[in-house]
Amino acid sequence: MDLKFSVDTKKKQDSSVYDETYDFLIIGGGAAGYTAGIYASRFMIKTIILAKNRGGTIIDAHVVENYPGFKSISGMDLMKKFEDQVKSLNVPILDEEVIDIDHNDGIYHVKTDNNKVLKAKQILFATGTARRKLNIEGEENFLGKGVSYCATCDAFFFKEKTVGIVGGSDAAATAALLLSQFAKQVYIIYRGNKLRAEPYWVDMIEKDSKIKIITDANVLRINGDNFVKSVDLDTGENIALDGVFIEIGSVPTASLTKKLGIELDDKGYIKVDASMKTNIETAYAAGDVSNAFNQMKQLVTAVTGGAIAAETAYKYIKQSKKQR
Amino acid sequence: MDLKFSVDTKKKQDSSVYDETYDFLIIGGGAAGYTAGIYASRFMIKTIILAKNRGGTIIDAHVVENYPGFKSISGMDLMKKFEDQVKSLNVPILDEEVIDIDHNDGIYHVKTDNNKVLKAKQILFATGTARRKLNIEGEENFLGKGVSYCATCDAFFFKEKTVGIVGGSDAAATAALLLSQFAKQVYIIYRGNKLRAEPYWVDMIEKDSKIKIITDANVLRINGDNFVKSVDLDTGENIALDGVFIEIGSVPTASLTKKLGIELDDKGYIKVDASMKTNIETAYAAGDVSNAFNQMKQLVTAVTGGAIAAETAYKYIKQSKKQR
Repeated sequence: MDLKFSVDTKKKQDSSVYDETYDFLIIGGGAAGYTAGIYASRFMIKTIILAKNRGGTIIDAHVVENYPGFKSISGMDLMKKFEDQVKSLNVPILDEEVIDIDHNDGIYHVKTDNNKVLKAKQILFATGTARRKLNIEGEENFLGKGVSYCATCDAFFFKEKTVGIVGGSDAAATAALLLSQFAKQVYIIYRGNKLRAEPYWVDMIEKDSKIKIITDANVLRINGDNFVKSVDLDTGENIALDGVFIEIGSVPTASLTKKLGIELDDKGYIKVDASMKTNIETAYAAGDVSNAFNQMKQLVTAVTGGAIAAETAYKYIKQSKKQR
Repeated sequence: MDLKFSVDTKKKQDSSVYDETYDFLIIGGGAAGYTAGIYASRFMIKTIILAKNRGGTIIDAHVVENYPGFKSISGMDLMKKFEDQVKSLNVPILDEEVIDIDHNDGIYHVKTDNNKVLKAKQILFATGTARRKLNIEGEENFLGKGVSYCATCDAFFFKEKTVGIVGGSDAAATAALLLSQFAKQVYIIYRGNKLRAEPYWVDMIEKDSKIKIITDANVLRINGDNFVKSVDLDTGENIALDGVFIEIGSVPTASLTKKLGIELDDKGYIKVDASMKTNIETAYAAGDVSNAFNQMKQLVTAVTGGAIAAETAYKYIKQSKKQR
């Protein structure tokens, strides 16, 4: 995804960035990571951002209409604004992927795919999630052309249309209920034989005449021309529809935390307290990869997590200077 | 402050708004209240905003540079964008002040200064804070012209300048430390004989050669022409400076909660849980008036509080429909 952005970090990729010991190293260039960068620069702590996938998952959203300040903007354009803001504050952003992290004598040694090592006193995981995909024909081609991974972002654009939701969890159920307020017909297509969402969601869905549940079915293929037209199911059915919402979950990108002994919750999200601290004092997490804010995964919670993490990092540096 | 905005709510102030029973009534038109309105409209719950003071306290900030998405914008312009977004989603905003609230049989009866009563199932206090003022000559005249109530917002604009901070608490201390990174000379002017900030802040201040502490002194008057030039102290001194940061605390605007039995913390902020609920199930608080997010009072935390409160209100409506 980084190719969609103009990459102009050559000047920052000289060797000097590897000689520094940063106060705060941010892994991730989505809403949480960039906001942490903005706040850290305001607090004047020495900060660097490692962002191989710039913009984070929000850049897949056709249009964002729930981030206050912008009536309507694409996820991509919004994240470009975040990135410009970070750059204007002279926080370096490196296009390098983290492949390993060690923590010795109070310093994190962060190894990147450029075969370099960065050093930092504190570290923020703002690594986001990866959408779980169906991995079927048409899924990638029609992304943004009828295929969506975010009902909250995109429901508005399917007024009086026919849509399908793939999945059977709470996320799929709430997506269906939200979409039924806009669309004229909603299919839930689920491979199991009974929705596994909470009973009251299931009850509401059953009472909703617009929603039809198709169980014991897998989507084999998404068809269309410029836009989605139908899906083929493994039951032999072909369902005509205008949109496919794939709600089969996300996978937190937290593999780097393992070696450091950072605790995850039972779904694999990084456990943080109200100050975005993990169980290790100088390691933080913010945004979708964390379990903060009642698991409400939104731009607004990501920016707040990033801001709080930066404040916590700032307080730590201030206090450690005092103790020296 | 509402006069600074174009007021165009006449069409909404017809009697029909008083006949409805709202799912969600928001008191306050700052960042938290407006964001709650944006999210509530996305969740399609029947919502109204009461906002006598539109924009909230952020409209006093000369320039906001720490709200992601905007490199640099005045607090006023940013809040106009929030308000336009709310209006575009057809959430009514009434220019009426709440003077009394009753809660009977699960319905809030909200009386306004227009001598009308609005009815709602759920209520959000996004009523903000009022800055504690010195109430001295020049304080109001030079607001935005050297007088500021927000070091985090405005420190950047005093590079190589001389500034005074009035106060002796943590807020004053951290303001001084932040300002010393920009200004060439910082005075802390405090009426007590010893700073009451946490010891490590005091220690850092004492080690900072740029900061001079003036104790046992009150500011009598702020002088200047187009911009602040000096302050007169009750010790007889006149101190030449370019900026005066008044950090003598804020007062949460929570008086309306009293009658409802809503719990406040020991500083008068409304106590909320992670879902922004108060001790009363259908009453919420968000933004500066709440004690959420480690008391980090920022735009980002206000918007997140508003969004979470709206989500909680939405879940409540969904669940109560289910139980009917």
